Amino acid sequence: MDPLPALLVVLVVAKVLGELVERAGFPALVGEIAAGALLGPALLGIVRMDDTIGTFADIGLIVLLFTSGLQLNMRSFRNSIRTGFSVALWGVIIPLLGGTAAGLVFGFSYIESLVIGVTLSITSIGVSVRSLIDLNQLKTDAGLAIVSAAVIDDAIGIVLLGSLSALALGEGRVNNILVLLFLAALFIGLLLTVGRRAIVWAFKISQKAHTHEMSYSMALVLGLLAAVLSNWAGLHYAIGAFLAGLVLGDSIRSDQTLYDSLFDLAFGFFVTIFFASIGLLFPSDISRFSIILLAALFFIALGTKTAGGLAGALPAFRNYKKSFLVGLGLCPRGEVALVVVKVSLAAGILSASLFSTLTVVIIATVLVTPFLLAWGFSLPGTGQETPSPAR
Amino acid sequence: MDPLPALLVVLVVAKVLGELVERAGFPALVGEIAAGALLGPALLGIVRMDDTIGTFADIGLIVLLFTSGLQLNMRSFRNSIRTGFSVALWGVIIPLLGGTAAGLVFGFSYIESLVIGVTLSITSIGVSVRSLIDLNQLKTDAGLAIVSAAVIDDAIGIVLLGSLSALALGEGRVNNILVLLFLAALFIGLLLTVGRRAIVWAFKISQKAHTHEMSYSMALVLGLLAAVLSNWAGLHYAIGAFLAGLVLGDSIRSDQTLYDSLFDLAFGFFVTIFFASIGLLFPSDISRFSIILLAALFFIALGTKTAGGLAGALPAFRNYKKSFLVGLGLCPRGEVALVVVKVSLAAGILSASLFSTLTVVIIATVLVTPFLLAWGFSLPGTGQETPSPAR
Repeated sequence: MDPLPALLVVLVVAKVLGELVERAGFPALVGEIAAGALLGPALLGIVRMDDTIGTFADIGLIVLLFTSGLQLNMRSFRNSIRTGFSVALWGVIIPLLGGTAAGLVFGFSYIESLVIGVTLSITSIGVSVRSLIDLNQLKTDAGLAIVSAAVIDDAIGIVLLGSLSALALGEGRVNNILVLLFLAALFIGLLLTVGRRAIVWAFKISQKAHTHEMSYSMALVLGLLAAVLSNWAGLHYAIGAFLAGLVLGDSIRSDQTLYDSLFDLAFGFFVTIFFASIGLLFPSDISRFSIILLAALFFIALGTKTAGGLAGALPAFRNYKKSFLVGLGLCPRGEVALVVVKVSLAAGILSASLFSTLTVVIIATVLVTPFLLAWGFSLPGTGQETPSPAR
Repeated sequence: MDPLPALLVVLVVAKVLGELVERAGFPALVGEIAAGALLGPALLGIVRMDDTIGTFADIGLIVLLFTSGLQLNMRSFRNSIRTGFSVALWGVIIPLLGGTAAGLVFGFSYIESLVIGVTLSITSIGVSVRSLIDLNQLKTDAGLAIVSAAVIDDAIGIVLLGSLSALALGEGRVNNILVLLFLAALFIGLLLTVGRRAIVWAFKISQKAHTHEMSYSMALVLGLLAAVLSNWAGLHYAIGAFLAGLVLGDSIRSDQTLYDSLFDLAFGFFVTIFFASIGLLFPSDISRFSIILLAALFFIALGTKTAGGLAGALPAFRNYKKSFLVGLGLCPRGEVALVVVKVSLAAGILSASLFSTLTVVIIATVLVTPFLLAWGFSLPGTGQETPSPAR
């Protein structure tokens, strides 16, 4: 199918299924992913992931994180960072160990087991954030802890990915990993100091421009630019976009028309393509899988991440239910985990069948999290101290 | 360059140059095309036209025509149709004859001369409309006549393109052309009767949806769908998108937030990519051209179209200056003309050097029109009977 009709079909089916799921009381993203799985190679085979849909999906993830940043304010986010660190650390270590151990138990090689561990350890910031937005819980204590943990988790993820490549490709140079870490730290440091002032200044300038859509274009350009630079610095697009949104939050929230317009762009178009594109990755050869391995990895993925989140959040929250909820919120694996398995497959350190199995596990964690979170936030003890509509 | 950074660079440079041109008092689209020429193969060679940029550009043209339709109302557009027919007819015949004659004079073959004639006879609806919007003249008498003539011109264009293919490829079957005409008429007929009710109904449904961005998505989906169907019916994307906008005008104009949001999407992002993509097509081998041929075709393009528009509009307007202005407004050749030369090159009935020359002529008419129109609308006698800001 030509790119434009393909995009149109994806948008329509994803919006319809998303609306149906939402009417049933669950986050729309589940319907959007299901639309991708329906249209993609797994079922109908009408639409295929290509460069064009990939670019729309990338922009979708970027505007999702950018608008999430816009909704938060720098101060409340900064306060959640300390909890986020502890949650991210435990939330990476336990799945890493658990996943690797499971691999060894199932008889996979040392390196394959390590790939399983790394895959299970990196949370999808996009899915976590979208679930919170759909459930209107982004700005709660638990929500903020999940977001900041997901951001830090992503940074840890690039180190793990770097280490894995170094090990797998025999480039065992610690230097490379140090360079990666240095670049990532440099990017975040520069963005939050010099970059912050430059971003706010550029946006102010755009408001004086001759054409009145200029501030819209500028917001978009700044979000995309921060994302592209963050990608060059070895981090994921998502991190740069989120930080740019956080920096611009105060300026853009004061212009309601612009704020609404950017949300429409995100949730009315691009974000939907992003989630549908996850469904497009669903493999077509599910029948060949070992159900036992699939189920085992799926439950290990959920169990270890929840345990890690719980362990990391408990010291700060001193509340079991709320800390458990933080763990649930970190369960989805997504963009980065998919990169890990793709890179490993290409490097020849992962068999095709284990690749497909892990892809299904990743998508399954994405599909189940919204339901888990909806249930978790309905528990009486989860106390939303700072409730306010996400938008 | 990867698709995302390429898109970002194009957007930034086009917005900056567009703003500069606008500050100098001329339509921004000139700066946007210049940005494409600067970044493309003609000069820096950083960005290349590919599927992804092509899809963004297609969506740009679609949302441009869709939002143009939104601004007009069905009744005033219907009133301008009769003038539009006469203008379109004369505005096609004179350049067709003039262009073909010029080709023969310059010693080109009969078929090559015919390609020149067809290329010069089809107006770019996108550029005409955008120039009128930038100059705030879309809803004037002359503006409406230009828009309706451009729509009809496009329909005549597909017949010419069909006839040319039939002649060139030796498929000399009149049947094909009749089928084309029938399909196009069927599409327009269905869209304005059953389709019209279906579109308005679908939009009303979307306003009751659970997720509040649904009406934004629905507007976008309806515009894209009408465009894709119109393309399947042999017409250009632009026609379907314009008619869908015209049909939805009343419903969407009553929701100011949605209206603003769709304009931001169009003019703050996609439309800019469309105009920059025209500049990307600028060929790199200009030095090899015959300047005399280039200049001759350029002035014939302007002269014949202006004469045709003048002849067609005079009976209705009984005002030389205003009719002349209509002719000027139809001068830009664009999307369809570029298809004509591309198809002819691929069919082997056009030499590479004549292809490049015609491409430059097409882009030159696009670049010069905004200046001509700005000057034309500044003439005292052009009397804007129904002046109102375009937005």
